[in-house]
Amino acid sequence: MTLVEEYLQIRKYSEQICEPLQTEDYVVQPVADVSPPKWHLGHTTWFFETFILKPYAINYQVYNEEYNFVFNSYYETVGNRVIRTNRGNLSRPGVNEIYQYRSYVDEAMVKFLAAPLKDEVEELLILGFNHEQQHQELLLTDIKYILGNNPLFPVYSKEKKEATVNQTASDFIDIPEGIYEIGYEGSDFSFDNELNRHKVYLHDFSISKTLVSNAEFLEFINAGGYKNFNYWHAEGWDWVNSNHITSPMYWHLIDGAWFNYTLGGLLPIDLNAPVSHISYYEAYAFASWKGMRLPTEFEWEIAAKSFNWGERWEWTESAYLPYPGFSKAPGAIGEYNGKFMVNQKVLRGASIATPENHSRITYRNFFHPHLRWQYTGIRLVK
Amino acid sequence: MTLVEEYLQIRKYSEQICEPLQTEDYVVQPVADVSPPKWHLGHTTWFFETFILKPYAINYQVYNEEYNFVFNSYYETVGNRVIRTNRGNLSRPGVNEIYQYRSYVDEAMVKFLAAPLKDEVEELLILGFNHEQQHQELLLTDIKYILGNNPLFPVYSKEKKEATVNQTASDFIDIPEGIYEIGYEGSDFSFDNELNRHKVYLHDFSISKTLVSNAEFLEFINAGGYKNFNYWHAEGWDWVNSNHITSPMYWHLIDGAWFNYTLGGLLPIDLNAPVSHISYYEAYAFASWKGMRLPTEFEWEIAAKSFNWGERWEWTESAYLPYPGFSKAPGAIGEYNGKFMVNQKVLRGASIATPENHSRITYRNFFHPHLRWQYTGIRLVK
Amino acid sequence: MTLVEEYLQIRKYSEQICEPLQTEDYVVQPVADVSPPKWHLGHTTWFFETFILKPYAINYQVYNEEYNFVFNSYYETVGNRVIRTNRGNLSRPGVNEIYQYRSYVDEAMVKFLAAPLKDEVEELLILGFNHEQQHQELLLTDIKYILGNNPLFPVYSKEKKEATVNQTASDFIDIPEGIYEIGYEGSDFSFDNELNRHKVYLHDFSISKTLVSNAEFLEFINAGGYKNFNYWHAEGWDWVNSNHITSPMYWHLIDGAWFNYTLGGLLPIDLNAPVSHISYYEAYAFASWKGMRLPTEFEWEIAAKSFNWGERWEWTESAYLPYPGFSKAPGAIGEYNGKFMVNQKVLRGASIATPENHSRITYRNFFHPHLRWQYTGIRLVK
Amino acid sequence: MTLVEEYLQIRKYSEQICEPLQTEDYVVQPVADVSPPKWHLGHTTWFFETFILKPYAINYQVYNEEYNFVFNSYYETVGNRVIRTNRGNLSRPGVNEIYQYRSYVDEAMVKFLAAPLKDEVEELLILGFNHEQQHQELLLTDIKYILGNNPLFPVYSKEKKEATVNQTASDFIDIPEGIYEIGYEGSDFSFDNELNRHKVYLHDFSISKTLVSNAEFLEFINAGGYKNFNYWHAEGWDWVNSNHITSPMYWHLIDGAWFNYTLGGLLPIDLNAPVSHISYYEAYAFASWKGMRLPTEFEWEIAAKSFNWGERWEWTESAYLPYPGFSKAPGAIGEYNGKFMVNQKVLRGASIATPENHSRITYRNFFHPHLRWQYTGIRLVK
Repeated sequence: MTLVEEYLQIRKYSEQICEPLQTEDYVVQPVADVSPPKWHLGHTTWFFETFILKPYAINYQVYNEEYNFVFNSYYETVGNRVIRTNRGNLSRPGVNEIYQYRSYVDEAMVKFLAAPLKDEVEELLILGFNHEQQHQELLLTDIKYILGNNPLFPVYSKEKKEATVNQTASDFIDIPEGIYEIGYEGSDFSFDNELNRHKVYLHDFSISKTLVSNAEFLEFINAGGYKNFNYWHAEGWDWVNSNHITSPMYWHLIDGAWFNYTLGGLLPIDLNAPVSHISYYEAYAFASWKGMRLPTEFEWEIAAKSFNWGERWEWTESAYLPYPGFSKAPGAIGEYNGKFMVNQKVLRGASIATPENHSRITYRNFFHPHLRWQYTGIRLVK
Repeated sequence: MTLVEEYLQIRKYSEQICEPLQTEDYVVQPVADVSPPKWHLGHTTWFFETFILKPYAINYQVYNEEYNFVFNSYYETVGNRVIRTNRGNLSRPGVNEIYQYRSYVDEAMVKFLAAPLKDEVEELLILGFNHEQQHQELLLTDIKYILGNNPLFPVYSKEKKEATVNQTASDFIDIPEGIYEIGYEGSDFSFDNELNRHKVYLHDFSISKTLVSNAEFLEFINAGGYKNFNYWHAEGWDWVNSNHITSPMYWHLIDGAWFNYTLGGLLPIDLNAPVSHISYYEAYAFASWKGMRLPTEFEWEIAAKSFNWGERWEWTESAYLPYPGFSKAPGAIGEYNGKFMVNQKVLRGASIATPENHSRITYRNFFHPHLRWQYTGIRLVK
Repeated sequence: MTLVEEYLQIRKYSEQICEPLQTEDYVVQPVADVSPPKWHLGHTTWFFETFILKPYAINYQVYNEEYNFVFNSYYETVGNRVIRTNRGNLSRPGVNEIYQYRSYVDEAMVKFLAAPLKDEVEELLILGFNHEQQHQELLLTDIKYILGNNPLFPVYSKEKKEATVNQTASDFIDIPEGIYEIGYEGSDFSFDNELNRHKVYLHDFSISKTLVSNAEFLEFINAGGYKNFNYWHAEGWDWVNSNHITSPMYWHLIDGAWFNYTLGGLLPIDLNAPVSHISYYEAYAFASWKGMRLPTEFEWEIAAKSFNWGERWEWTESAYLPYPGFSKAPGAIGEYNGKFMVNQKVLRGASIATPENHSRITYRNFFHPHLRWQYTGIRLVK
Repeated sequence: MTLVEEYLQIRKYSEQICEPLQTEDYVVQPVADVSPPKWHLGHTTWFFETFILKPYAINYQVYNEEYNFVFNSYYETVGNRVIRTNRGNLSRPGVNEIYQYRSYVDEAMVKFLAAPLKDEVEELLILGFNHEQQHQELLLTDIKYILGNNPLFPVYSKEKKEATVNQTASDFIDIPEGIYEIGYEGSDFSFDNELNRHKVYLHDFSISKTLVSNAEFLEFINAGGYKNFNYWHAEGWDWVNSNHITSPMYWHLIDGAWFNYTLGGLLPIDLNAPVSHISYYEAYAFASWKGMRLPTEFEWEIAAKSFNWGERWEWTESAYLPYPGFSKAPGAIGEYNGKFMVNQKVLRGASIATPENHSRITYRNFFHPHLRWQYTGIRLVK
């Protein structure tokens, strides 16, 4: 596939994700972490315009100078921006205008990509692909949040499956003590946070081949897991109590039966599916209750060739920190990862919201420990 | 005009106000006080359905049971409701669905109104008219807020004027001391808060025939009025400082010149127009700076036959309190006014957002003293 | 009594109020509205130093220049000040240092008062007396709050009584419709907010000769008064629910019996005593439940010669607003009352915390409607 | 030294730290993290009473049952407690009562320690020693905060030095790549978080022999370090801006010269002293500006035998996480460390506030990244 083809395919997929939406669904921001879908469509476009077309495409005319203010996410280098919590207050630019903006930038990109690219531009282009794919993941989970927190529980799609594997009894793999290599190696794309590849010393551990299922998590609930501080971090316990948490996000107890809001609507809980939409605090508490623990991200990376993964982002015990030799790129692109390396937890794997070809064994995702709107999951170590 | 005709005319006007909107503009709620336009359209419909069709129309089928939860505003008697600050988080029901809901209820109402009405139903119907007209006022000011706080400053309408009178030099009317009658008298509709008609004793006062103009308010700004605590209430001074207030809402100082966001877009300040979008705190501070004061609502009511009014809601010095003999209606309708009679200030007159036939000299509007998104104004007394 | 004698007597009484305290009790500020007792002792001293000694006493040496920052309450004219919520963070100046400050200023005042006073100084002196008496009231109620919110419930004094009258069955006085005169008249001291004396028109009303008792308020509780929104203002209902209010402040339900923290410690409720420590919202809700209402401040002032008052500050329905012809004094003293005339309710009468000679029938006290730490009470009108 | 002698020596030292205080200084809590000194004195006493005397001393009479509520810090197992932010609202028990409580418990402990101890009790006793020593460190830094945030800047002690070493030009030690052993080894006391001793793989690094000095940090300030987002984490940048941070805590720019509040009062900055009272965010930003980084806690532990340490707690890049094989003790004691292992950063070393014999090379301290009131410092790695 040529770069142009890849560009167009990725760009198209963002729009495909939005196909089931009504115009109104593109606009709202029910909580700060969930951006309006139309903002994602604009922001990913702004990324190509700002980092490729403006600096490198000859005679490129910026579509609308005001959009820099509206669609910049967090790049301090690139000027002021709408504060994150205000994205849902903006009805304009409207959905159609943003699709026109996409078309305009796509046309300019196709023209630009017809000529040979300098290496530095090709790198930015590939980064732009990966950036848009990251937003595709957020786009789907943000849409789920918008629909799933509406009292009418609208269906997104009857076809989109949230889990494909039936969970079976847990089985553990033993990994022996020793020195292992961690981090990306190869010549394809990786994020700067996967580098440098380096050595770590791991002690003996056993890791489950399967994710924790809804059935297992229900046992934790029924055993009073949410009401016993012994299983929780102090901050997790505060979080449970001040937010009145009694189950994973999207679970509803209706007349004594558990239901689950999914992309296919409000459905009875599938007991065999892997549990999802739990915070790190809940993952940790569940593991404590089991007398086990979560893997570190290094343990996960070494063991992952021996089990199936890819439906749930898996919480690890590791804090999100730089690898030895990590260094930021110069300029705005250097703001991509490094400045978030505090107070967050690493998740490994991928999820059903992850676009194809956007996962690998060294990929490091990261979120604050209380967040639940991603397709998170739990894998145990003993 | 028959009641059916009046019903249809009022219902249509709500939709006319929304004609210039894009679908996205119907959805957002940038601050708690500003409701999404689609919510106003649904809520006014719900009012007729809940208080007339459900109790009185034989065999009426409720359009959607869930809508009671979505469109109830504050009637505790009628069950749970979406909390006010969450209205902008709901993308569904969508704009088209709400227009369908309006059509459905309108058809049922037309059918219902074909038969003769009991007195109690006619009273509720007239209340419903006035209720929708109150929301029409909010609808327009909420739309102005949504568009006027967007960095793209979209135009609502080039035709809709925000003021028709040119202000001229202030001229004062003298009213002599004595006993006066206050409150509604007659057989047409009035709100319960305009009753009972009762006597008050007024002392001599002189009241301006004109509203304070933008030119006069600019003098206050240029004289440092926003920086001198002497003119302000203690709570007003806190409000100014913690919100960094330096001018009326919608004013923008661009390269040394003052602009004003209006329904017609961002325009140079019209110095002869009456100042608007000021809080009670600002109205009070302006009056103090002038060595004058605001009228009480009683002074206003007595003097109003002698001057023009109707373009700005005018802040008074009066707190919103019950008149002698005030009593609440039984049931949900009793929640209409009485429960708001604390911590609010009375405004008298009407504004360019007020529908025709929805103003009278005894009408009492009320808002918290810091609010500015209505077309508020200042009239002085000495 | 000479002015010097009056000065010394008033100054001494502030210290007598503090006699039962331990040093630690002088320091804390459990909520923003409750100031540390040592702050009251310093602030009232600073008042005499700032407004009399500094401008008028020849060669007066300021005790400590830093104290202006520490002991200024809200006078913007007199410079910066410790923000109100920080008073309880300051361990220094300590209690002994503040008593030394008092002695130093008292000596200077005695010396100063030996010479004849200009009229304007005598006015300031009398204002200083009344100012310190107002703080004596706050001092006692703040001490009650500090001790009464301590889990050890320490006794302040076994002797200090919180009520002297036994309540008996309610009896109403009828006041006929007509023009009445309101506000202070005479040549003794009054606050600026009691002026000008002016006419009001009152309609017929009947007012209770007695205050609502604990027994009556208990009926309201037992009838579910705190759980029925119909009796409450919308803001009152929010206040009840977000603060989980189920009884007056200082009431405790222990093993099925009601207790009351008093200056004499935690005691069984005295059913015949007038209820106290209720907010305006509760007073209003109680009156609604009874099918009655609270008096306006004008009704109260006219009727008060016909009943006993003085143990509870009585909530009125009136908002705190200026009388006709009200004007502020120039300079810092002008900040005394006028700038608080918004969002507060008038209370009339006096309380057991009010110093002797500091009450009169035209006195206007004022607090925000949610506050309860004063000895507030309820008198009904029908 | 016998256990009784050690007990008495440690207990006495807590009281010695408080000798320079006035009674008022024992009471206040200016921010949530800073506890009143009297609370520390009570809480450390409660620890011995609750975990040793109550379960093990025959016929021990609890001093006051209410104290469990007042002096419990965070042990959920041991019942309800005053919430942390309310500690400064409690004037009782007073300072003298708490010293009496200390005497009472000390007498009972001396009697109890006269008999031979079971191993499990000796372990709890040693934990109690270390617990009180940890609070001695907090006691001194909390006192510094209380005095140093008072506008009168009272002196704690002219003798207590905040730094003893003169900083000289930085010199780096090289540590070679390889497997190293981390964690406590031996038979003396260590905290559970220092276990298990385990292997880590370290890459080559060079670490400074000296801490960053005030002179070096001043260069960072003068170079605009606080105003350039490039050096900061995104959360650090938010923290700087929303708290208006422009220098380390306790620094004051007075007429163009930098002063520093120290235990000896407000003094000109000592340029040769190690910088202190900086947050992790500031330490990280300083290192970024230098083109270097902070050490991991493992690098620090391996290198620390080759440099002087002990005057400043040194921020590391490591998140506070469990070592391999970490397990919590059963019961309340198990709440000591494990439940805080999220969202905090590890500090290594010790500070001038650390009691003698309470530091070792494997000791792990931990705080949230924004906190500054400890004697924190910076050591660089390249």
